[in-house]
Amino acid sequence: MVIVIGDVLLSDDTLDEALLLSRAHVDRSRVEPGCVSHDVHVDTEIPNRIVFVERWADREALAEHFEVPAAIDFARALTALACERPRVDIYTVAAKGDA
Amino acid sequence: MVIVIGDVLLSDDTLDEALLLSRAHVDRSRVEPGCVSHDVHVDTEIPNRIVFVERWADREALAEHFEVPAAIDFARALTALACERPRVDIYTVAAKGDA
Repeated sequence: MVIVIGDVLLSDDTLDEALLLSRAHVDRSRVEPGCVSHDVHVDTEIPNRIVFVERWADREALAEHFEVPAAIDFARALTALACERPRVDIYTVAAKGDA
Repeated sequence: MVIVIGDVLLSDDTLDEALLLSRAHVDRSRVEPGCVSHDVHVDTEIPNRIVFVERWADREALAEHFEVPAAIDFARALTALACERPRVDIYTVAAKGDA
């Protein structure tokens, strides 16, 4: 499995539009092959910070996701709305457990 | 590295108290040995759902975290406030990359 954690800092003026675009991106992404989960959250500490948590079956599924034209358009639009370059961390999972 | 993703569904009556407890837990956890990041977010789709994203240096650091009395008390209190048993997924990372 591959986990993606994405951090995006918006301004008071761009947060609402970013959330609208993000919700549509989440809905689109969830039906893509290999998408295990895809969600977007609002930080409780910095209210203009949104955080994506995505789980993909493997690197190939994620690579295909990054090639979807709507995903490319979304990334470009979200970056334009952000106060700083969005941070996207990708983790390949070796083992999974439950608490 | 170890990633913890925690999902907790609250009710309208318990959300505020859960967030207060969670913010204090985050602040405590961040200064523990091996804590790389520790945040709590609110889902944009289900507003009573809170999501923890934690990064720990290794399994040993996380195991020590789970033994901290305040963390044990917090987990018990949060579970009591939740509508259903909180879900905690733990992922051991094999490799990290950036988009």
